[in-house]
Parts: sequence; C-alpha cells; structure tokens
Amino acid sequence: MPQKIVECVPNFSEGRRLEVIEGIEQSISAVPGVLVLDRHSDVDHNRTVITFAGNPGSVSEAAFRAIEKAAQTIDLEKHQGEHPRLGAADVVPFVPLSGTSMDECIALARALGRRVGNTLGIPVYLYERAALRPQRVNLEDVRRGEYEALKETLGKDPERDPDFGPKKLGPAGATIIGARPFLIAYNVYLETGDVSIAKKIACTVRQSSGGLPNVKAIGLLVEGRAQVSMNLTNFSETPVAHVQEMIRSEAEGYGTSIHHAELVGLIPQAAIADVLQRYLQLDPFTPEQILETRLFYALTEQAEGK
Amino acid sequence: MPQKIVECVPNFSEGRRLEVIEGIEQSISAVPGVLVLDRHSDVDHNRTVITFAGNPGSVSEAAFRAIEKAAQTIDLEKHQGEHPRLGAADVVPFVPLSGTSMDECIALARALGRRVGNTLGIPVYLYERAALRPQRVNLEDVRRGEYEALKETLGKDPERDPDFGPKKLGPAGATIIGARPFLIAYNVYLETGDVSIAKKIACTVRQSSGGLPNVKAIGLLVEGRAQVSMNLTNFSETPVAHVQEMIRSEAEGYGTSIHHAELVGLIPQAAIADVLQRYLQLDPFTPEQILETRLFYALTEQAEGK
Repeated sequence: MPQKIVECVPNFSEGRRLEVIEGIEQSISAVPGVLVLDRHSDVDHNRTVITFAGNPGSVSEAAFRAIEKAAQTIDLEKHQGEHPRLGAADVVPFVPLSGTSMDECIALARALGRRVGNTLGIPVYLYERAALRPQRVNLEDVRRGEYEALKETLGKDPERDPDFGPKKLGPAGATIIGARPFLIAYNVYLETGDVSIAKKIACTVRQSSGGLPNVKAIGLLVEGRAQVSMNLTNFSETPVAHVQEMIRSEAEGYGTSIHHAELVGLIPQAAIADVLQRYLQLDPFTPEQILETRLFYALTEQAEGK
Repeated sequence: MPQKIVECVPNFSEGRRLEVIEGIEQSISAVPGVLVLDRHSDVDHNRTVITFAGNPGSVSEAAFRAIEKAAQTIDLEKHQGEHPRLGAADVVPFVPLSGTSMDECIALARALGRRVGNTLGIPVYLYERAALRPQRVNLEDVRRGEYEALKETLGKDPERDPDFGPKKLGPAGATIIGARPFLIAYNVYLETGDVSIAKKIACTVRQSSGGLPNVKAIGLLVEGRAQVSMNLTNFSETPVAHVQEMIRSEAEGYGTSIHHAELVGLIPQAAIADVLQRYLQLDPFTPEQILETRLFYALTEQAEGK
C-alpha cells in the first residue's frame, strides 16, 4: 500500500530576521514524519515560503505549530513589505500528493482552520478549494486591503467575518488556509533567440488569453534563447504533455522547434505517470510499478512498523 | 543523496516443496535492509525465482544466506525438472538500480563468488558482465550438460575449472553468479486483431532478426488483440521510447496503430527518466526532481540516522 503524502506551502510575513525564520522552520521540522523540502525568503517582500511534506497528520500538526510560532514572533503592526499580507502566517495551502485526494486536503484545511481559530484566537479564512463562500475562492479577494483595512472592518462588516476564530484582529493578523493542486513550474526553451516568438506562443497557450486552462505563461529571453516560462496550476486537468505538444506545434508554425525543457523545483509522481500514459500509452500505469517506489513504500512501512 | 539500491534475482532448483522454498525466502527476508519483491515457483521446471532488492551490502549478505540455505535443503542427486540447472542455488544475478553502477554489481558478484567458493565449498562460475572468461558470458554455455555432466568432468577438464571454490561437485552442485542489466518485460497491443502483423513487427524490432539491440520480441494474439510481447534486456542502450516509436512507425506502415502498452512487473526509475528526456526533452532530468522520490530518500536517511 502506498503511503499518503501531503504537501504544505505556508507563506510567512518575515523575510529579514533570520532567527524568526529559523524558529518557524524548526517548529515544522521538529514534527516527526515531516520533511522540509525548501525555504525561500525575499527581503523586499519581507516574506518567507517554506515547502514541507509528509503524512497528513504530521503535516497538519507542523502547520499548526508554525502558525503558532509565527504569531508569537511576528507583529503585523510593525511589518512592512512589498507583498500583500493579512497575517504573520499569511497563507497556508495543503496540496495533495501520492495517495491523497483534494477532498482530504480540503478536510485538513478546514480542521486546521477550526483549531487555529479556536485555540490560537486568530481569525481564519478558508480559500481556493477549501473555501466555504464563493467570494473567498480567490486569494487576492480574501487579502484585499491587507491587514490594515481588515483591522478596521472586522467585526463591523459581516462580509469579512472569518470562517473560524474571533471577529477581532490581534498583532498576528489573520491566516488564510486552503487546499489547491500542485503547481509545476515548467520552462520550454526554443531553438530560436527571437523572444517575440516565445511571447506569441505564451499568449497562445495561457488561459488568460484564451489558451489552455490552468496554464500561466510568459515569453522571456534567457541566455540568448527564447523561453516560454510557465506555471501549470493543475496538471491533472491540463497534463504537462498536452502543454508540451501545443508548444511544439506552435513552434513549428513559427519555423522553429523545442530545444529542451526544464523543471523549476519538483514534479509530483502523478504528473510523471501522466507522461507515461500519454507517450507510451502505458495504461494503466501506477507509480507502484516503479521498482524504487515500491521499495521505498515497503521500507518506509517496515521502518514505521518497528 | 540518493540511496544505493541493487536488485538480486536468484533461481533455485526447487519448485515443489513449499517448506524448502519458504526456508530460502526467509533466509533472505531476515536480512535487514532487504525486501523480497516477488517469488515465483514453477512445478514443471521444479524451480523458484525470488526477486529482492535493497542496499548492496544487505543484498549480498542475503544472497549468501540463500545460497547456503539452498545447499542445505536441495539435493541435486534427487532433483528433476524441465529447466536446465547446475546447482541448488543455480543462477544469482545482481542488477544495478538507483545510485549503483554495473561495475559495482560486477564487484558484488565476484566478492560473493569468492565467499561462496571459500566458505561453502561450492564451485562458482562467474557469468555475463561478471565473467572472467569470454566463454562464460552466456549462461547457456556455462550450464551446458547440467549438473550430471559437470559432475563427470569437473577436476578433469581444465576448461570447466570453477572461478572460485573446489574442483569437485557435492550434492548442492555449482552456482553461477553474475551481473546483468535490469530486464523490462513490455507488451504493446495493436488496434488490429491480425496476429500476423504483430509477428512481422516483432521480427522487425528484435535483435535476433536484425532489429534493435537488446530487444527480444514475439507476436501473440491476446484477448483478440495482436500483441508485440518483448523483453528489453538493456534499457540504457535501447530506451523504451525508442522501441515504442519503432513499433508505432511499423504499425502505421501496416495500416494500424498502437492501442496501449503494458509493463509486466516493474520498471526502474532510470527508465522513466529516459522517457521524460525523450518526449518532454527534460534535460537534465534526475529522479530526485520527483517530489515523492526526494521525500523517500530523505525519510529513509532520517530513519537510518536514528
């Protein structure tokens, strides 16, 4: 039986004070069964993104402890940065990976929201797939006006009532918790150095200008080569192979071709399985057919059984 | 850092007495860090194949214990079966997987051969990539005449001198130890029910009739559909995608196409990486870019560090 794995990518309103950032990371990595995969701080945004994963129970516990730690060490009255934010722990999305569904991540988000609201006294808004109100699906809508505006209106405007926790904002602000699909950052380099072709292809493939759903794309010139730089926000609905073939076909139309592609960061196993299904027509294909995966599942179970 | 993993697929000359078979399997699974992935017994062949994997040291230790156990419980003087064999533990190949090279498997095979020869008093022949004599590369050549003929000639004909161990055959017979690439069993189903097309395509793609190296293929009719059934004996030299595209092109030539493909058993991660490089032009691509793989590597290291 494969293990259940969930990813969590919380954003914290601190990108400058290393001791605060490390304190938050340690509150996560101290939870057994959780692994911190990445931490990225931006000084101008004054913001840190931590990526971690593990079994659902451990990931949820680690998210709670990180929100608690952030509330203790970040004061929104003093926080300044370019990036919009509502709270110390600003956004906390759960992402389904191996063996877990979006529904399980929605349930995790709502349970964590309730716990944070009730025990930490922090107002919580549920967003994206976990949203309880349609006007809270989009993160930007929830965060509108930021901490400062929310402080004024919370408790007065019922439209801004949190889903959990008090109708009152303390110095930790509010936390936005939710569930969303995995985001794949994917770049395709063209044989040409003509960036205008990359821009035209980006325009054709991206959702916002009538292209493929769940694709954000821009054209760039990177080291002398035209690049279509993308975020694929739902690889189950819009597989990587589908995007690749659309770019291949468009590139041919402009008399050029794909030179190579690159992943920025990680790709989930399920997206790999999609590629094998599409090109090798391996159907069904499950990650447990990969020898190393089978072995790791079994060894992890063995270790946990001890 | 990724873990080093080696597979071992020993063949034992017992396919009928369950207590003997289970005794051998238990001698393998009792070694920590080793996992039995499969066990297949054939009553007519009177033979059992056990597939296991793990870190190189544990796999080698488990192979030794299995050879020892087989020597204690299988008597070649009494063994009868359709499959050719030289010994109780007949053939013991090591197969490189994640993080290990063919050279490491050759070294494992030779070290195990020396240990088996010296401490168990069993004559050992090294074959395939681990062979020390060119006439011992092919398994069939080493096994010619089987146990009965070897018993007569060993110690008389220097051509049959073992690589390790005594020039004398006991009831455990001799053991053939070596290293070889992973074998992928891969079937491609065509849209047609005309088996003659599958047979023609099999003839075109297989090495023996002038096709692709490292490909064995036959044409079959399976559930009303023509199937090209293959063993890919070296996916590094002859990638799965290469075989797939040759079949696709041949099928088109016969006015048909690929319906779907299937794996029989497991595929190594490195073969998956090949597919991503070929079709998505993801270059470089390493398995550590797969989120779950990264996680399993790290969790295994964590568990081992404790």
